Amino acid sequence: MSKQPNTNATVHQHHHLTFAVAQSSFLVGDIEHNIKKMRQQALKAKAQECDVIIFPELAVLGYPPEDLLLRPSLANRVKAGLSKLADIEGIVMIVGYPHVDHYGTFNSAAILHNGQQKGFYHKQILPNYGVFDERRYFDKGRNQVLFDYKGVSIGLLICEDLWQPAPINTLKEQGADVLVVINASPFEMGKQTERIACVQTRAKDNELPIIYVNCVGGQDDLVFDGGSMAVQANGEIAHEASRFLEQMLKITYDQQQKQFDKQSKAPLKLSQESEMYQALVVGLRDYVNYSGFKGVIVGLSGGIDSALTLCIAVDALGADKVYAVMMPYEYTSQTSLEDAQAQARRLNVSYTVCPIHDAVEGIRHTLAPLFSKSRADTTEENIQARARGMVLMALSNKFGHLVLSTGNKSELAIGFTTLYGDMVGGFDVLKDIYKTQVYELANYRNRLEDVLVIPERVITKAPSAELRPEQKDEDNLPDYPTLDSILSLYVDKDTSFEEIVAKGFDADMVATIIRMVDNSEYKRRQATIGTKVSKKAFGRERRYPLVNSWSIEDPSLS
Amino acid sequence: MSKQPNTNATVHQHHHLTFAVAQSSFLVGDIEHNIKKMRQQALKAKAQECDVIIFPELAVLGYPPEDLLLRPSLANRVKAGLSKLADIEGIVMIVGYPHVDHYGTFNSAAILHNGQQKGFYHKQILPNYGVFDERRYFDKGRNQVLFDYKGVSIGLLICEDLWQPAPINTLKEQGADVLVVINASPFEMGKQTERIACVQTRAKDNELPIIYVNCVGGQDDLVFDGGSMAVQANGEIAHEASRFLEQMLKITYDQQQKQFDKQSKAPLKLSQESEMYQALVVGLRDYVNYSGFKGVIVGLSGGIDSALTLCIAVDALGADKVYAVMMPYEYTSQTSLEDAQAQARRLNVSYTVCPIHDAVEGIRHTLAPLFSKSRADTTEENIQARARGMVLMALSNKFGHLVLSTGNKSELAIGFTTLYGDMVGGFDVLKDIYKTQVYELANYRNRLEDVLVIPERVITKAPSAELRPEQKDEDNLPDYPTLDSILSLYVDKDTSFEEIVAKGFDADMVATIIRMVDNSEYKRRQATIGTKVSKKAFGRERRYPLVNSWSIEDPSLS
Repeated sequence: MSKQPNTNATVHQHHHLTFAVAQSSFLVGDIEHNIKKMRQQALKAKAQECDVIIFPELAVLGYPPEDLLLRPSLANRVKAGLSKLADIEGIVMIVGYPHVDHYGTFNSAAILHNGQQKGFYHKQILPNYGVFDERRYFDKGRNQVLFDYKGVSIGLLICEDLWQPAPINTLKEQGADVLVVINASPFEMGKQTERIACVQTRAKDNELPIIYVNCVGGQDDLVFDGGSMAVQANGEIAHEASRFLEQMLKITYDQQQKQFDKQSKAPLKLSQESEMYQALVVGLRDYVNYSGFKGVIVGLSGGIDSALTLCIAVDALGADKVYAVMMPYEYTSQTSLEDAQAQARRLNVSYTVCPIHDAVEGIRHTLAPLFSKSRADTTEENIQARARGMVLMALSNKFGHLVLSTGNKSELAIGFTTLYGDMVGGFDVLKDIYKTQVYELANYRNRLEDVLVIPERVITKAPSAELRPEQKDEDNLPDYPTLDSILSLYVDKDTSFEEIVAKGFDADMVATIIRMVDNSEYKRRQATIGTKVSKKAFGRERRYPLVNSWSIEDPSLS
Repeated sequence: MSKQPNTNATVHQHHHLTFAVAQSSFLVGDIEHNIKKMRQQALKAKAQECDVIIFPELAVLGYPPEDLLLRPSLANRVKAGLSKLADIEGIVMIVGYPHVDHYGTFNSAAILHNGQQKGFYHKQILPNYGVFDERRYFDKGRNQVLFDYKGVSIGLLICEDLWQPAPINTLKEQGADVLVVINASPFEMGKQTERIACVQTRAKDNELPIIYVNCVGGQDDLVFDGGSMAVQANGEIAHEASRFLEQMLKITYDQQQKQFDKQSKAPLKLSQESEMYQALVVGLRDYVNYSGFKGVIVGLSGGIDSALTLCIAVDALGADKVYAVMMPYEYTSQTSLEDAQAQARRLNVSYTVCPIHDAVEGIRHTLAPLFSKSRADTTEENIQARARGMVLMALSNKFGHLVLSTGNKSELAIGFTTLYGDMVGGFDVLKDIYKTQVYELANYRNRLEDVLVIPERVITKAPSAELRPEQKDEDNLPDYPTLDSILSLYVDKDTSFEEIVAKGFDADMVATIIRMVDNSEYKRRQATIGTKVSKKAFGRERRYPLVNSWSIEDPSLS
């Protein structure tokens, strides 16, 4: 093994190399657990006669570890962890880990073989945009790394390194036969298509076969969706792993043919709804399980957001861990009561009705002396929402279930939501799902079974917060398809007011919506997390000041 | 003017250059407002016969602009803004601004003179730690910039550039006579002492006089505290601006003597309590005013946290903008009622008593059928705290005042606080102040006036949340000096469990406290902002995962 180009390929007359791709989930922070899992997988791969096992980016520590990377004991813990892999012989292990030495801290891949660290590679291109803050923690690697094993020269890259053409070009020039790229690439809609296109382009441009390894599982607001693959030098996909699931992919490289063997059966392509739905299920499942909650509690309103949230919770955790509670008040319709009950029954979850009349009246009594001269306004609507939040939190405190909030991205964007009311909770499943997508997902879920788990009426009736008589969401807002089109331009694509108007939307309406988005930043700052599925999710991916005097209209154009 | 070393110094026989240092506040996002302010200041400086006026880092856009830097219209808006300075003649303007061109986006200083942009400098060292995310937005500058004016060669640097020795070394080698450094350096305790030491070291090491320009004012959780200065080549401070206040400092440089004139009177040195207190006042004042709130509302408990918060609010906004409300329940002592009223009276703020008995009873009625088989626990305590939060938010919604939360850093650290209860609010004045510091600041504030604005008893009585009979904070916790010592090691200094125990603290107690800190991350994630005063404030400066399986004890040591 060396960092030099392959010069001794003819010494070993071994024409095949078998790689095990460990598409797995690794826990953020728990080095002992992660190393134990790697041991098991390495021994399994060895038993299956694999020559090399590849683990994802930063697998030793999990991804993204955030400020755990600043802990002074990190270097020792990682070293101690890696040393526990030393007794595994007869298989090369490529292991993602944080490397700390007197040159800095690096996002690295170690090459371990027969108890020795044969080399390491430091990631060269550190993403520091969107959800990524890698330059907060890591120094840049400066060197390419190639290593030879059984006559095959293997180049190593890490994630972002592959998204630019230079690093792989250099490896090719230095004589790489195969490229291995380890990743921790979070899910967003359409991302797998982009990854495949990128890997294919790099493979073809460099005539170099590529093995792409991703992790799986949820970590806070991120979901890693797997989709590991092997792509031939001509761009053909030879192997593709399942999405969202742990899987050990076995790939054989033929050094004479300079190509991989072919997978007998490719995994199913996921529709857009299907991948979105699965991401939400995995994100919730792992958050609840890794946090150690016994179950979740969902406030049902009879509306579509809570209905869909309930479905996802059941699919993520099983019906026995999901508790539904309906909290009617004066403005709750009979329809809503019936629909909430029907959803809970069809999904077979525990269902309780807890009218909030006494709570609301008690609060009103308390406030009456202070409000004697005031007229009713949204304050009274917020009190209802907050009484419901109070009940949910009391149930959570008493029985230990995590409260799921049910706000969607459209509502959160414009602040059509009550802080400490419907926003209470530890996880918001639909946080990154626009209202129009909520309908798509509800219809998608209903198509999966013969029985409609979300009653038809929940999907067809006009959405309402039911906080005053005859209220409908669209009284105050444009219809959701219009609203979501504008939001998606402004929030996800940073499109300016002038450009949105140029697409044919009413200028006053656009200005109003932009103002609502900007003015709701303080609510979102106190919102709970939820799974990212879009290209720009609220949270760490979109960082706006609270005090923000940016004008909606561009004064330089006037 | 050129980027070359000064070669024409003898051409101009002008031996003095007068600098105006514009230590000012600039609004994040409001380019038009900021440019207007610069115009006024430049004209004023010109009237005072200054040759050069210096504005702080990114003054055109305010600091930190966060993702506003990603807005596609940024380049045009900035260009349009800078063009409005073109008609100011006869004074050189050094202006911090974001520079966008086809090479990238830079954190830059423009040199403007008589309607022309004579040059620009791009910041070379981009901080990406603590509260800073500059590599998310900016590309690195690669070149030193010197410009000659009236026979003096002026070198330019921006903020972090000065904290490393290389950039100023190069400027000295290239022939700089004077160094100008523009900054947006946020306050933390002791920071001004560090800044002075750094500027003095660089000046002496390079025998180069330095003008250091900082901004002032609050922006979300940051406060900029000014303290601009001029330091002679021998390290002596020639001028120092006030802290926290807008000020125009006039500094004359004598090219023959190679030194600055001396300030007639240096500003007062601030004590640690005084600078901390002023930072809290400025942070709150600017948040409330820039957000456009008419006033603030504070829930008084009779305890010291709300008492100190009330003082700071009055000092920041004036008594007529501060509303106090006491919300007693069964466990509220007569002492607390008296003390709350006394504080409000002494500070001359509006004071209301709003008993929450009806609210709590209403909520209990609502929950009774669900809790019939359960024993009372912290759920019932949380209900009281949440009923108070509900009242505060209802008053805020009805009358438009911002709710101030009153949690301190010790409570937030260990989660000794109720989500959606005492945590409600739009700004938490004491968020970065440990309980022991709350006492220091209360005593400090009481020393400022003859009358004790915080009644003596509020300071001397044992702290209690008064959520059950005879409750005291220290029933569940070590005494606050011990707690704060451990927290300050773990939170502010990232000290490991083993090292904290090695300092003589009980291992079980340390483990319990660390566990409480780690397990409360989900609460802090939903907490409101508050002014940073420490070296590591909760919020953007300390980024931990919610799902975090890092073990308290280091397994590599066992």
